Formats: sequence, C-alpha cells, structure tokens
Amino acid sequence: MSVTRPAGFRASGVVARLKSTGARDLALVVNDGPRRSAAAVFTSNRAKANPVIWSEQVVKDGTVSAVILNSGGANCFTGAFGFQTTHATAEAVASELAISASDVLVCSTGLIGVGDQVFRDKILDTVPAAVAALSAESGGADAAAAIMTTDTHPKEAVEESPAGWSIGGMAKGAGMLAPGLATMLVVITTDADLDPDVLDRALRAATRVTFDRVDSDGCMSTNDTVALLASGASGVVADETEFTEALTALCRDLALQLQRDAEGASHDIAIEVVNAASEDDAVVVGRAVSRSNLLKAAIFGNDPNWGRVLAALGTTDAAFDPYAIDVSMNGVMVCRAGEPGDDRELVDLTPRACTILIDLKEGDASATIWTNDLTHDYVHENSAYAS
Amino acid sequence: MSVTRPAGFRASGVVARLKSTGARDLALVVNDGPRRSAAAVFTSNRAKANPVIWSEQVVKDGTVSAVILNSGGANCFTGAFGFQTTHATAEAVASELAISASDVLVCSTGLIGVGDQVFRDKILDTVPAAVAALSAESGGADAAAAIMTTDTHPKEAVEESPAGWSIGGMAKGAGMLAPGLATMLVVITTDADLDPDVLDRALRAATRVTFDRVDSDGCMSTNDTVALLASGASGVVADETEFTEALTALCRDLALQLQRDAEGASHDIAIEVVNAASEDDAVVVGRAVSRSNLLKAAIFGNDPNWGRVLAALGTTDAAFDPYAIDVSMNGVMVCRAGEPGDDRELVDLTPRACTILIDLKEGDASATIWTNDLTHDYVHENSAYAS
Repeated sequence: MSVTRPAGFRASGVVARLKSTGARDLALVVNDGPRRSAAAVFTSNRAKANPVIWSEQVVKDGTVSAVILNSGGANCFTGAFGFQTTHATAEAVASELAISASDVLVCSTGLIGVGDQVFRDKILDTVPAAVAALSAESGGADAAAAIMTTDTHPKEAVEESPAGWSIGGMAKGAGMLAPGLATMLVVITTDADLDPDVLDRALRAATRVTFDRVDSDGCMSTNDTVALLASGASGVVADETEFTEALTALCRDLALQLQRDAEGASHDIAIEVVNAASEDDAVVVGRAVSRSNLLKAAIFGNDPNWGRVLAALGTTDAAFDPYAIDVSMNGVMVCRAGEPGDDRELVDLTPRACTILIDLKEGDASATIWTNDLTHDYVHENSAYAS
Repeated sequence: MSVTRPAGFRASGVVARLKSTGARDLALVVNDGPRRSAAAVFTSNRAKANPVIWSEQVVKDGTVSAVILNSGGANCFTGAFGFQTTHATAEAVASELAISASDVLVCSTGLIGVGDQVFRDKILDTVPAAVAALSAESGGADAAAAIMTTDTHPKEAVEESPAGWSIGGMAKGAGMLAPGLATMLVVITTDADLDPDVLDRALRAATRVTFDRVDSDGCMSTNDTVALLASGASGVVADETEFTEALTALCRDLALQLQRDAEGASHDIAIEVVNAASEDDAVVVGRAVSRSNLLKAAIFGNDPNWGRVLAALGTTDAAFDPYAIDVSMNGVMVCRAGEPGDDRELVDLTPRACTILIDLKEGDASATIWTNDLTHDYVHENSAYAS
C-alpha cells in the first residue's frame, strides 16, 4: 500500500489513455491532513520539464495537499502550451478537491517533446475519475502502477517507527537508465507531525546519499522529482534524527529497486570508494568510474578489466596517487598499489551483484555509487524506444 | 609512405610476437636530420602509462632522434619493472643507432597491466631487427601497420607545401573507442626547418581543434601520444602560419580516419555547436552531447530523438537559454526555440555521416565535436576484448 500506509493519505491510479497499452497512467496522492507539510527535490538539469518548473514554485511555501502524476509524456520542451497544461492540471485537481491549485504538485514522465492538445485533454478529462477512485486501501498500489513507464514492476517501500509513525513511498524509473529520459519520480508520505523545515532537511540528507548516488548511465533527466508529504495524522512529533534515518533507509530501498530494474542491465554494480580525502572526492571518483562505458561493457562480459577502473579515475582531480591505490572486484584485489595484484581469473562476475572496491589510501571518507553494466539490451531498448 | 614522405626520415615495422596474430607489432621512426627538432602532446589522464612518463621527459629539450612504438601491451600500471622496460627499450634503440637514449621517445599500446618479463624480452630481442629494416620507402607503411591494434586498416596522411616542405603522419586507434584503452598513437614528421618552439606551438594549435575534439566514447586513455619530428632536410624554413594550417589539416585528416574506424560504430556524428558565447562553451556543450549514451543509442536506431540532445546540454554550465535554442539533425530543424520544430519524420539518419547542429543563440563562437553512435558491436567488442 506504500504511500497510503501512513494515516491521512489516499491515492488512486486510473487510465487516461496516455499509454498506448491502455494501462493505468494517471496517479493521484492526496494528503487529508491534519497537516500538509511538504518538501521536494528536483532535477538539477537546466533543461527542466514544465511540471518541474511549476512544482518548484508550489513547494516553496512548504505546503502541499496533493500530487498528480502522469506517465505517457514528459511535457518537457513543449513551450508555453505545455506549461499551461501543467497549470490546468493543477487547477482541475484543485477544483475537484476544493483546495488551492498552488498546493498541487504536478509530475510527468515519458517522451520529451510530448505534450499537445490531445495529451492535455486526456489528462483533464480523467482528473475527475482519479479523484473518484481515491482510496486509503488499494489506491497506493494503483498509483504505484500508474507511474510506471518501462519499469517491469511497481516500486514501493514502507518504514515503521515504534514511536507510532510510518513512512511510505513509491517510485518509478529504471535509474537514470530509462529511455526517453522519462526517469525518476518518487512520492513519499508520512503521518509524523513535522514542519516543512524538518522535512526539507531530512529529505535532502536522505536523497544525497541514496537517489543522488544512483548513476546507471550518466544521463540526467529533465523531470526527476522526489516529493515528501507529511499529514501529521499519527499525532506524533517524530524525532528528527530517527525520522531522517528511517527516511534514508526507505530512499535507499527505493533507489536499489530502481537500480535492480534498470533497463537492459545484467549487473548491479556498487562502486565503493574508501579512504578518500573527502566524501566529495569519493563521490567524484565513484561517479567517474560509473560512467566508463568501457568498464561497464567489460562487466557485462564478466571481464574484471581493472585497467578501465584506473583509466577512469585518472580523469578526476580528486586527491590520490594513482600508483598507490588498490582495486578489488568481488573481493579479489586485482590491483595492489597500482600494479597487477591477485590473479584476475579468481574474480567471479557471474552473479548479478558486483562490487568494485577502490581504496584511495588518502584519508578516511567514503561513498558508494550504484550503477549498472552496459549491455546489448540497453542499446536495443534505447535505440528502439519512442513511446 | 606517410612518415617517410618528408626527407630525412626512415621507418620500419617488424614482428616481435607481442600480438598473438603474428602481425607486425614493433615500429621505429628515425630522424636522420640534419635537425632533430621535436614536440609532443600526451594524454591528460593522471593515470599515465610508463612510456608516457618517459617520453614527457625526453621531449622536454625539444630534441628527438627516434620513436619506438609497440602494440600488444600498454605497459601501464606495471610498476617500476614496467618503467625499466621502457627505459631499456630506449637504451636498446640508442645503442643500435649510436644516439642518446634521452632522445628516444617510447610509445606502447594494448591492454593495461601487460608488461612482464616476456613482454620486455620480446621487445628488446626485436629492436635490432627493427633497426635493420629501416627504410625511407616501404618503412612508412610497415610502421603504420605495426602500431595497429583493433584498427581495421592503417591510417596515414600527407600534406605538401609549394614552398618545398612536406608533412607526413601515421595514427592508430579507434578514436577513444578502442577496447582496453589501447588508444591513440600518432607520429608526424616534416622536413621543414623549424625550431622546437615553433613545432610545439603548431602542434598544440593543431591538436586542440582536431584530436582533442574526437570523443567517441568519453573514455580517456592512459597512453595517448602525438609526436611531431622535424628533420629540416628540405632546407626550407616554413612559414609558421602556413605550417600550422597544413599541420592542422593533416591532424584533422587523421582524426577523422580514427572516427571512421571507431570500433563497432555505425554512424560518424559531427556535433556542431554554433553561436556560443565562447569557444570553450561550444566545446563543453558539444562534449556533453557526445557523451549521452541515450542519444548515441538513438542515433544507432536512426531515431532523431532531439529531447536527448537538450537533456544532455542542460547538464552543462555554458551560457545559453535552454528554451531558446534550435537543434537540427541532418538539416531538419527538429527543435525550434526550445519547442518541437519540423516533423522528425523528415530526418533521414540512414547515412553513416550524421550532423547535429546546435544553435545556442548566445554569441558568435563555434566548435565541432566528432563522436560515434552506441551500438551492439561496441558493447560486444568491448565486453569480449582481452588481448
């Protein structure tokens, strides 16, 4: 039930015929209060979709009553008409729920450049059905299904506190790997009684070490949105530290679900960078390695080609001596102090889960980047996709 | 005859059995003078191969008498033993030619981590044969063949000046696309009478707008080297501007030969960025677009997915308004002022040559980045390669 697990929330997922398959494609999540605290983070891409431009303004006052999400079209680079579509969608939801449009987040996902009159009409015509279908029971699962694009299954997660509050979340997207850049949308709900300021701090802390560290294919989306809504319906003021930890656990759970469902991938690769001079350095190194097509193609072929790890990290300006570092692949130290280490034949890359451990021998900071391999299926799905 | 076209040069390409195929794998280029002016540029990767570390020192005094190059092993991340191998190779060449080892450039290409005793012995044992085979006639072609790894054919080019001097060049590597990061090696010769300072200026000017703008797969090598040697044997002091223009033309010719032979590629993509605020901005934008796996997979599928162009350039900090720009693909303006433009069905992506024109509408600077598409063959060749 994901987003409807915390008290005070209803959700729905209905068919607006945006998807050619006829599957659910319009989701609605409503916060019935008593509080409507909220926070959100968005793509840092300068090429922002219209719903992102709208939602960034909506969440500024820390109050969100509802989130409407569609798959089947990103409404990005669709000009003034596209922005008006987003606005009209928020107005339609507000009208049906007797709330303010300025408290309605809008999220879209699908192909960039899609957002014409037909697209608009389908959404606006279906909003009443989405409101009518709102439910605190089946609505969560329906909503999680409605935001799927090329996901093979819905992604949901729940965390419960002994203190009496809970967090629920749903996500869509195959990491950054999704074709058409129709990528990551996440809605998280909680019935803890928390101010927007606390939500914002907790959400940024949680996403920084979870969603921000998934880098399936280096392609940043125009539509990424992670929204967190608090109803306060549990009547419990959550301890901020405990809440942030639970939220981080939930975000990590969803982030790893995205990685495991990344399009075309045959390996889930955790790039663990340790003993870096700073956490930033560890992230920079991990991200550079995660973006090496040569390394990712080698992992696809079960080839522990550690030279490609070193060539990738050599392109960064992080603090380390390239001839001092160790690299282990699935537990075998194939490179020791910048020279060939243990026999690479000992590395077993047949499991889907793969760990590349990079010891920079420079300090005590660390970070993990989650990525995927580069496969024939990735090329195929991203060369053929157009809807 | 490439590198032996200018007067004053001999070359050879022989078999050291570094390649399992038994093909030529050891090349030698010798400058017989009267001058031995030289300049070189190297990979900016901090993870540098031993031959690069050696050659950076050799070229510092502007004098180079010979270049020895091997395929079949990159001698990178092979530690102190590997560096000694490079040094011993230079000494062996110097001894045979009665020159100083400090005037011998060494270049290696092949798999990272390869450079053991067997590798060393094969090279040192074959140096006398390479010297014995030196020739001003067939030697150029033999040398161009000996530096090939996964190249499907040798790359050579010649420029001749009416003033009486010429430039010859050979290159190996499939852009940055070469598996094992056994990438770009280039040797250029001229019989113009020029100082090392002039050669250095001309070489940096030429490579900046040619080799530096090939970005097949975003992977920077550990062994890249471009060396320029002048014999002065024509007796003509070349005009620096004319020489730089001819050198740039030759480098562009070789760079485009690399792109056209890029592993697994089915499209040669020119990303032309115009009306940028600065040339740096144009390069940054072109490079970001050239590194979008999603775009490159779309081109492979003959899909003019312009949304992926916009999503990629939105990740840069170059000066432009993402909602103002135009994008044309093979002459069809598919995105006009940040909105859908002409019908994408009009774009014909079936030819191998593909041009993506991005008009930033910000200034008058421009730059072109040459890249390739992301194909099944790229994934296959880079997942399977190990020699």
